[in-house]
Amino acid sequence: MKPNDLPSSPSTPATASPWTLARRAERMNPSVIRELLKLTERPGIISFAGGLPSPDTFPIEAMREACDRVLLEDGRSALQYAASEGYGPLREWVAASLPWAVDPAQVLITTGSQQGLDLVAKVLIDSGSRVLVETPTYLGALQAFAPMEPQIEGVASDTGGVDVDALLQQLGAGDDQPESMERRRLLTLDLDPVSSPAAAPRFLYVLPNFQNPTGRSMGLARRQALVDAAARVGLPLVEDNPYGDLWFDQPPPAPLTALNPEGCIYLGSFSKILAPGLRLGFMVAPAGIYPKLLQAKQAADLHSPSFNQRVVAEVLKDGFLDRHVPTIRALYKRQCQAMLAALRTEMAGLDVQWNEPDGGMFLWVRLPEGMNATELLPKAVEHGVAFVPGSAFYADHADPRTLRLSFVTATVEQMGVGIAALARAIREQHTA
Amino acid sequence: MKPNDLPSSPSTPATASPWTLARRAERMNPSVIRELLKLTERPGIISFAGGLPSPDTFPIEAMREACDRVLLEDGRSALQYAASEGYGPLREWVAASLPWAVDPAQVLITTGSQQGLDLVAKVLIDSGSRVLVETPTYLGALQAFAPMEPQIEGVASDTGGVDVDALLQQLGAGDDQPESMERRRLLTLDLDPVSSPAAAPRFLYVLPNFQNPTGRSMGLARRQALVDAAARVGLPLVEDNPYGDLWFDQPPPAPLTALNPEGCIYLGSFSKILAPGLRLGFMVAPAGIYPKLLQAKQAADLHSPSFNQRVVAEVLKDGFLDRHVPTIRALYKRQCQAMLAALRTEMAGLDVQWNEPDGGMFLWVRLPEGMNATELLPKAVEHGVAFVPGSAFYADHADPRTLRLSFVTATVEQMGVGIAALARAIREQHTA
Repeated sequence: MKPNDLPSSPSTPATASPWTLARRAERMNPSVIRELLKLTERPGIISFAGGLPSPDTFPIEAMREACDRVLLEDGRSALQYAASEGYGPLREWVAASLPWAVDPAQVLITTGSQQGLDLVAKVLIDSGSRVLVETPTYLGALQAFAPMEPQIEGVASDTGGVDVDALLQQLGAGDDQPESMERRRLLTLDLDPVSSPAAAPRFLYVLPNFQNPTGRSMGLARRQALVDAAARVGLPLVEDNPYGDLWFDQPPPAPLTALNPEGCIYLGSFSKILAPGLRLGFMVAPAGIYPKLLQAKQAADLHSPSFNQRVVAEVLKDGFLDRHVPTIRALYKRQCQAMLAALRTEMAGLDVQWNEPDGGMFLWVRLPEGMNATELLPKAVEHGVAFVPGSAFYADHADPRTLRLSFVTATVEQMGVGIAALARAIREQHTA
Repeated sequence: MKPNDLPSSPSTPATASPWTLARRAERMNPSVIRELLKLTERPGIISFAGGLPSPDTFPIEAMREACDRVLLEDGRSALQYAASEGYGPLREWVAASLPWAVDPAQVLITTGSQQGLDLVAKVLIDSGSRVLVETPTYLGALQAFAPMEPQIEGVASDTGGVDVDALLQQLGAGDDQPESMERRRLLTLDLDPVSSPAAAPRFLYVLPNFQNPTGRSMGLARRQALVDAAARVGLPLVEDNPYGDLWFDQPPPAPLTALNPEGCIYLGSFSKILAPGLRLGFMVAPAGIYPKLLQAKQAADLHSPSFNQRVVAEVLKDGFLDRHVPTIRALYKRQCQAMLAALRTEMAGLDVQWNEPDGGMFLWVRLPEGMNATELLPKAVEHGVAFVPGSAFYADHADPRTLRLSFVTATVEQMGVGIAALARAIREQHTA
């Protein structure tokens, strides 16, 4: 039977929609990046836009062998329902791989680390809760938090990450009043969960290693200062570390979570060191909140694919990453250096600024005064190159001159051509 | 650095927890079934508790071939990030497989159909919204809806599913006042989303085929009556159909969604016809709300694993299910018949009632007057058999005499032994 065979009465015209959306649906928006990707995936466009890992780094052969072995030896379990916490040996591997003492019982396997952000939002954010993020910050985190209707505030940040003094000022907990946040937090515990703007933030979301979008990293002193300040004022930290293994010359300092495990949730991912198409990540959470994150996980998708978890555990055996990840680091370092060299050559004479990351996938560009990266994009695409305008990455007070360049999708050979095209677009737009 | 090296001041004792949970976290609870499974997975226990498909039905060889082919021929795409909507050929397969005209653009691939429930909850439920469910209903749906803080109400149901007259009465829209619901809905549009109890429900969640937990199905007349009534009063339907393909002798009538696609969201799953460990399901939604469901999906986990989607699309090619699913049907029919035969033999003389499903994975048992299935369970486990007490499946007014038996996990050979053990436990408890 077709819909128009449905009996309709004058009181229910066929065009009336019965659906009422939840208020939070207003906060949901299509990802600027994913929409852009559709635009820029046209043949002939060199894309510095998406954060797609180079498929040259995907361990296809190791995956083939692991799939075969898992299905042959353990197919009936690999294809069955499984525990929401994740596959035991994979949780143990994660715990052992981290540079602080982690009990595998605190590890939750997630469907990509994006799901970790969704679970954090569900368990920690009420409508109206304050949530703090870096300036700028990862767009996908803003998207994951938004449906739980927080008040998201950017924290002043510089090339070394979160500005800790500014953070304390923002919290009303400057040097002269170190206890005020904690006191305020205690005072608000019995209030309506729809917090007033002055209530204690539920957490600060921070990406200390080769941040998306800027590529910047936090040094050890800054990390220690942030963790100390957060502990002093009772501010939980949500630390996201998808890129930490992608260092060029030396590994980054210890994670924030290693400095205070009880005050931090840590998110990790297999997307950048194995492959994103497996959708596997993990979180490490303090024992006090792990059960609620687990229950949220169970309600969200029961468990992450048991097959994928076993295949990854199989691939990881025998120190595979010790051989594999250095090849990714070397490739991305070459690509980053090629992009930087091209920037130096092609942007000569233009007042364009950029940083030189020590790892990761991105660098951050600032256009000459008066220019707007969003307006530049169509012109750049005309010239055959794409990027992501920076404004998408700000919780508030976006800097319209900024843009993000990914150096992992395009090849070394494409860097010169792509950056030259970008420079031409900037020159044209600048003089227009 | 170890956590106890963290500088601590008198104002922040090491025991103070900085974490504040969202109000919705109070609504999250561990799944009774998943906790039970841990208890009942002891060796020697015959489990009628979990809804684990028989691993004998998992297409391990077809999976091995498909994994190999996908990785060899398409590994770089299969392991890369992908569109949130899902893999094109899989969406096309889903659209073509459904018995009404479905545009592939309306198909969203989900990380198991459980994720479909999570997305529905996020997009349609405000705090305080009324949501209607069958009596009893799928426990996982109650868990998925609860975090969005609805008022969940059970709708009177009988062996043929939702009682449509009772539904209309509950909505204040009996035969004499067919327009009142629609009018009330319009009147409440501008009100605070924390709805009053009399506001229009956001949807009715219904599982028409071989329902979990009862195994009951809705006949065509009942389906038509429900769809007509829902359309008349402007009540959206969320139709869940994980078991529809598992019929014994004849396929069930058309889905509710086929009778009114614009008024229904349809959820499907590959868990019962291929394997649950892949965590792949799908939803079909009207064009008016699809974009919001897609945005919620994107924020939740970016996309379902591209590798799994391609492997499943590869397995499904060339009519694989036409050969494979009949073997599942035949197996489950044999197992169901063995359980029913054992029930007739072993429950003789006891006032125990049960239904005889036409497909699916479950049947529903009612104990003699005065008995309580939750209290019976430890006794049953002592005797070496497990089930799920029915009370977990009710939104309200649970019937403590009910319990769910799964006939798909235990073998035909185990049915007699397991049901005999259950009968002994009932006799002991009954006379205790």
